[in-house]
Amino acid sequence: MGKTQITAEAGIPQIVITREFDAPRELVFRAYTDPELIVRWLGPRELTTRYERHEPRDGGRWRYVSTDAQGNEFGFHGVFHGDPSPDATVQTFEFEGVPGHVAMETLTMVERDGRTLVRTVSSFQSVEDRDGMVASGMEHGVHESHERLAELLDRLREA
Amino acid sequence: MGKTQITAEAGIPQIVITREFDAPRELVFRAYTDPELIVRWLGPRELTTRYERHEPRDGGRWRYVSTDAQGNEFGFHGVFHGDPSPDATVQTFEFEGVPGHVAMETLTMVERDGRTLVRTVSSFQSVEDRDGMVASGMEHGVHESHERLAELLDRLREA
Repeated sequence: MGKTQITAEAGIPQIVITREFDAPRELVFRAYTDPELIVRWLGPRELTTRYERHEPRDGGRWRYVSTDAQGNEFGFHGVFHGDPSPDATVQTFEFEGVPGHVAMETLTMVERDGRTLVRTVSSFQSVEDRDGMVASGMEHGVHESHERLAELLDRLREA
Repeated sequence: MGKTQITAEAGIPQIVITREFDAPRELVFRAYTDPELIVRWLGPRELTTRYERHEPRDGGRWRYVSTDAQGNEFGFHGVFHGDPSPDATVQTFEFEGVPGHVAMETLTMVERDGRTLVRTVSSFQSVEDRDGMVASGMEHGVHESHERLAELLDRLREA
């Protein structure tokens, strides 16, 4: 199984995340695109996530809400730019807790020998925005999301 | 009158454009927001621009088409993120000639002594995308747009 790599270079307003999964690209893409599957792996384990809207097409919008054990809700939303495909999914991303700070994510998937390398480049409006995202503890969420996704992909392959 | 400054630092996937205009912020904001005014200054003089869609509100979309003297058409579109205001307008920007390459623009306006400093930060998905935009000759378009806008603001102030 691959290990998640998170790169945030000084002075460059981006975060690059890569991870190899032991599953074919078609299956990984489905896990990233079907809201019923996404909520089974997205975010740290202590949160529960529900989709309010999910329109994976050019100009379509998405919104999900994550709830913690105390019932606090955290909303996120964005807009797809272009039709999502395993080659590229481009979408904006905004945490409703700090409106006006928008990131743009480009997600690509490359398959080799039945394994899939997933790469996400998040571009921020400023280095300060990027640093704010890193400081928010997103690394914990990314690592745990990827662990959960790897487990889900194992179950889907066995099913 | 200010001079337009365009900055594209090596290795950083952004373009920063600043220009001071001799007009109050409210008027400059109107020139950036009212499609009937925008088409009077946006783009180089040899192009004619028409708006197909303009919804300046959170989640609203915009699209315009520029036509050259030979009748060639160039389409551009994007999505507003947050309600545009003189403090901040955030929108995505995509040239339809190279779909999938999306930039995010943050436009801010600061007034001082009746003059307005306009600053645009364009964030790209990669340095290559940013360099492609610079290579496309955007500088000529920006300089001429700003000249035309300064002229329009003069006329609007006199009216």
